Amino acid sequence: VLDQGPDPLRYGPAEGVPVLRELIAQRLRLAGMDIAPSQVLILTGSEQGIYMVAQALLRPGDGVVVEAPTYPGALRTFRSLGAQLHPVPLDKEGMRLDVLEGVLAYQRPKLIYTVPTFQNPTGITMSLDRRRGLLELAWRYRVPILEDDPYSDLRYEGQHIPLIQALDRRNYVIYLSTFSKWLFPGLRVGWMVAPRGVASRLVGIKRSLDLCTSPLSQFIVFELIRRGVDHLDRILRIYRARRDALLSALDRHCRGFMEWGRPQGGFFVWCTLREGIQMEALQEEALRAGVAFISGKPFFLEGFDGERHLRLNFPRLPEGRIEEGIQRLALALRQAASRPEPKVEKAGELGTPPVV
Amino acid sequence: VLDQGPDPLRYGPAEGVPVLRELIAQRLRLAGMDIAPSQVLILTGSEQGIYMVAQALLRPGDGVVVEAPTYPGALRTFRSLGAQLHPVPLDKEGMRLDVLEGVLAYQRPKLIYTVPTFQNPTGITMSLDRRRGLLELAWRYRVPILEDDPYSDLRYEGQHIPLIQALDRRNYVIYLSTFSKWLFPGLRVGWMVAPRGVASRLVGIKRSLDLCTSPLSQFIVFELIRRGVDHLDRILRIYRARRDALLSALDRHCRGFMEWGRPQGGFFVWCTLREGIQMEALQEEALRAGVAFISGKPFFLEGFDGERHLRLNFPRLPEGRIEEGIQRLALALRQAASRPEPKVEKAGELGTPPVV
Repeated sequence: VLDQGPDPLRYGPAEGVPVLRELIAQRLRLAGMDIAPSQVLILTGSEQGIYMVAQALLRPGDGVVVEAPTYPGALRTFRSLGAQLHPVPLDKEGMRLDVLEGVLAYQRPKLIYTVPTFQNPTGITMSLDRRRGLLELAWRYRVPILEDDPYSDLRYEGQHIPLIQALDRRNYVIYLSTFSKWLFPGLRVGWMVAPRGVASRLVGIKRSLDLCTSPLSQFIVFELIRRGVDHLDRILRIYRARRDALLSALDRHCRGFMEWGRPQGGFFVWCTLREGIQMEALQEEALRAGVAFISGKPFFLEGFDGERHLRLNFPRLPEGRIEEGIQRLALALRQAASRPEPKVEKAGELGTPPVV
Repeated sequence: VLDQGPDPLRYGPAEGVPVLRELIAQRLRLAGMDIAPSQVLILTGSEQGIYMVAQALLRPGDGVVVEAPTYPGALRTFRSLGAQLHPVPLDKEGMRLDVLEGVLAYQRPKLIYTVPTFQNPTGITMSLDRRRGLLELAWRYRVPILEDDPYSDLRYEGQHIPLIQALDRRNYVIYLSTFSKWLFPGLRVGWMVAPRGVASRLVGIKRSLDLCTSPLSQFIVFELIRRGVDHLDRILRIYRARRDALLSALDRHCRGFMEWGRPQGGFFVWCTLREGIQMEALQEEALRAGVAFISGKPFFLEGFDGERHLRLNFPRLPEGRIEEGIQRLALALRQAASRPEPKVEKAGELGTPPVV
């Protein structure tokens, strides 16, 4: 009967279940954040957080800085709310600050959206210097940063780099993360750390969106984390082995056809095709060879920038299938490379951002 | 490991899990709706549906017809998106169509929001004639209707009245309901039936809001409903007994101090104070007597209209506590009635809508 069952089956607070907020605050303090549990808001997946921040900070026509390439779900959400998007290209240290400064000075955007760690789709991690420089610019031009960080728990090698939120001394960063990447996405539990100034506005929006995140899901996440300290270690071992298998297979089979980065964590290996291989031809050949990948297209505002790239996602496949998949991809690459180049003039070759 | 667990723990389709959509479509066909499973969208609670519809159909400044009084969560959502609200008073058959027609003709609103069955807060059910008349007006002025229907499964007496959606022959109605009122609100599962024309736009918004409703919650709801056919019957017996206990206690203890309706279903008994009892005094006395109620204030756009009303919510309390609570309320009413009337001039006495 309503409101007489145990707590997980009743309505919960819009901010989230207190025990889970405390647990997350504890974990974030270990990662260098100086925050109180009251700043942690539980979300129905971190996707919801992108929407909430856009809804709280943007009016139609307002500008948003996004990385080029970036997560297509964020592009969809900002667009759906009428924002104007300002792409800033990445180099191997992350967002290019020279380009960003021009955008901040001349376009006066209202928000900077970044996935600084093991970025989707490039796998790039923003360097410490770049994070500090980004914050300096945000402070100077008074633009808040949305730090979307679903992957930083999944580091397979290298040193932890401080979160942008942890470097911020002026409450300019809204931080977003999720359990979906190493616990169960089907639970739909993410969270946000909001500066005190905007937290209550964000809670109001959260209430309008779905009253509260499922308390049942929240209690399941809480118990899984509280009891399963070694679960993340196990996931890291599995995913690291898959990343290594993928990189080694690429090295053995795909050299000369494309280049790729070596991500220190996360889900993605981002590949850049060599001149002369057409994406359309490659997709046809891949279908024939029985292998699937995601083309770079949806990650760019102007889809044609993506025609030179593919994103490979390694955590989903056991190592044996990775070897076989990359052999098939290599076959498709060889076939596509041997096709004659189409004669049509190509638009958009200029201005393609230098990725990886 | 991601995407290798059973389906309930993985990401699901934005539209919802197919088995649950089919089950809901089956139930709705029994209630007279001529719909396909593809029109059913699963929501993270029906609150999300109000937001999605507002986001899909309204631009800032657009008008929305709301009942006066109505559900405060809907007022909050429409307001937060910049809508202009047009309250239409209720009589005992529901929304007053004479007032509605004036609003439609002169204000040109973009949406009519109604809770036609066992309304929150009044408990009023819109009559069949009124439903038909409402549809005629919506068709004539080309304004879609959002039929918010969380309570119609909870009928304790009287005949089922067709849903507005089931009477509509022109795809003007978006229908919203939830499992939160007789299963577990903590699962956060509601649903929407959308006309084919807007369904894909709504799915796009849903994806931006939270990608998908927790598949785990959806499978739990599916299994509970599939296995537990008599659960609703049991809930109906319990809630009916509580409603009867409340009405009988009101009759024995509160006559002369206020009037109230007899809801045929749902959660609420709506009371109207007699002249001379001040809400502020009553709230002070209720606190002293140790009994809580919700004043009518939050249910009206202009809060002062609510000062004459209180909403009692019976499903939450066992019968014994209802009797005791109403005795305490009667004591508070007696005390408040014996206080001298304050001398300040009161604003807003004119134009108070005739409720119940």
